[in-house]
Amino acid sequence: MKAAYELAACIGDPLFLEPFWMQNAEGSAVLESGWHRMSCLFHKDGSYVSAELEKIIRKLHNVVGNAVTDKRFIIFGTGATQLIAASVHALSLTNSSSSPARLLASVPYYATYKEHAEFFNSSNVKFEGDASAWKKSKGNDNITQVIEVVTSPSNPDGKLKRAVLDGPNVKTIHDCAYYWPHFLPTTHQVDEDLSLFSLSKATGHAGSRFGWALVKDKYIYENMKRYIYLSSMGVSRDTQLHVLQLLKVVVGDGGEE
Amino acid sequence: MKAAYELAACIGDPLFLEPFWMQNAEGSAVLESGWHRMSCLFHKDGSYVSAELEKIIRKLHNVVGNAVTDKRFIIFGTGATQLIAASVHALSLTNSSSSPARLLASVPYYATYKEHAEFFNSSNVKFEGDASAWKKSKGNDNITQVIEVVTSPSNPDGKLKRAVLDGPNVKTIHDCAYYWPHFLPTTHQVDEDLSLFSLSKATGHAGSRFGWALVKDKYIYENMKRYIYLSSMGVSRDTQLHVLQLLKVVVGDGGEE
Repeated sequence: MKAAYELAACIGDPLFLEPFWMQNAEGSAVLESGWHRMSCLFHKDGSYVSAELEKIIRKLHNVVGNAVTDKRFIIFGTGATQLIAASVHALSLTNSSSSPARLLASVPYYATYKEHAEFFNSSNVKFEGDASAWKKSKGNDNITQVIEVVTSPSNPDGKLKRAVLDGPNVKTIHDCAYYWPHFLPTTHQVDEDLSLFSLSKATGHAGSRFGWALVKDKYIYENMKRYIYLSSMGVSRDTQLHVLQLLKVVVGDGGEE
Repeated sequence: MKAAYELAACIGDPLFLEPFWMQNAEGSAVLESGWHRMSCLFHKDGSYVSAELEKIIRKLHNVVGNAVTDKRFIIFGTGATQLIAASVHALSLTNSSSSPARLLASVPYYATYKEHAEFFNSSNVKFEGDASAWKKSKGNDNITQVIEVVTSPSNPDGKLKRAVLDGPNVKTIHDCAYYWPHFLPTTHQVDEDLSLFSLSKATGHAGSRFGWALVKDKYIYENMKRYIYLSSMGVSRDTQLHVLQLLKVVVGDGGEE
């Protein structure tokens, strides 16, 4: 029997994009030999990430016009799931108070946020629930550090949402997984301090477990990167190779399209 | 510039196995189409893991004779790195005391254990350093819950090690990453409650970020699985496909060998 968290996590498995990839089977295929990319480093620059993949992600956002990538660091994660945890963690480290940062989201929110915070039981973060309820509560003293997760477009209703909270004590994570033209018209370029995207929603490859964050602040970037390395030593190089080929097809760079 | 934790983490990148894979280039290659394995579930059983891969891992241990897999659950992780975190977490949940469990290892230990415990700052676990020093200390009251990580063979000296601590309050994680015949003669089958292996050392594919745990207890197994799902929603299906093909070659099941 599957646990509730397993079923909930896979809601929105985007198999409706499968026909596109079947039509582009040749251009999007990858042949990986047993001796290919064995090392945990990419040879040329001693890095854990593919510089070529980072470049094509910037190109993808420019072609689609859904996000600003200038002056942004890019971090890869094993799905947006790992990046949410990395973001919450990195933002909580900017909290100089002895009281843990409060993690908030607008209802209806992804139940995983709560499960995350409770299961990992970090001394740095406490899940506090609905952002609007917090805004009206006594806890909202403009001093307590809070981290608000804004999922826009919202899942499942597709509405564009804005942050409920603001102020110098508020940090915001923009989960933009659904902000692609095959879900809704992309009317502006996301230009936030910290925004998350996932391959799962961009191309439909949920099984590849690949996501990326666009991050403005260097300190937040460094701490997110550290989180990813300490928790899984980066993202599978097999996956990075596969994703590179898929995105080449999408942006029309050496693919069939 | 690379941070110290990044360089330390990649020590032992096992590229000496590259010639073997070059000789077996054809049998170990994988062609992955863009439409292949998009879902986050494996179709037949609604699972996040490949049942076929689990089967071949059991076969690998039987052929090599380095570990007992009967009556063991198998958990996949994004490298042994993620599995260490999952193990520590799951074992800390068996702690009914209000004091956090102590995480220990024999010197010289992998510095990442300490960094992990400090960076993630879980309320459940505190890094306490050397197991032998703890054994002689006042803290060793046979009540405080402790988790000892035993890396055997040891890295870097290759010595077989045993747990320093025992008792009803002690849980042990056996990191057996180097227990393969290409590193030293495998004289016995590992038969512990919780042991970890990694593809990085088994076949040399550090870049694939794949490891597995053999776990006896169902409660520990369930909590490790939950950790993996909540932190990254399982392991990349691209990687699982690649690993399956590599291990088929190793066990001589449809490969070239």
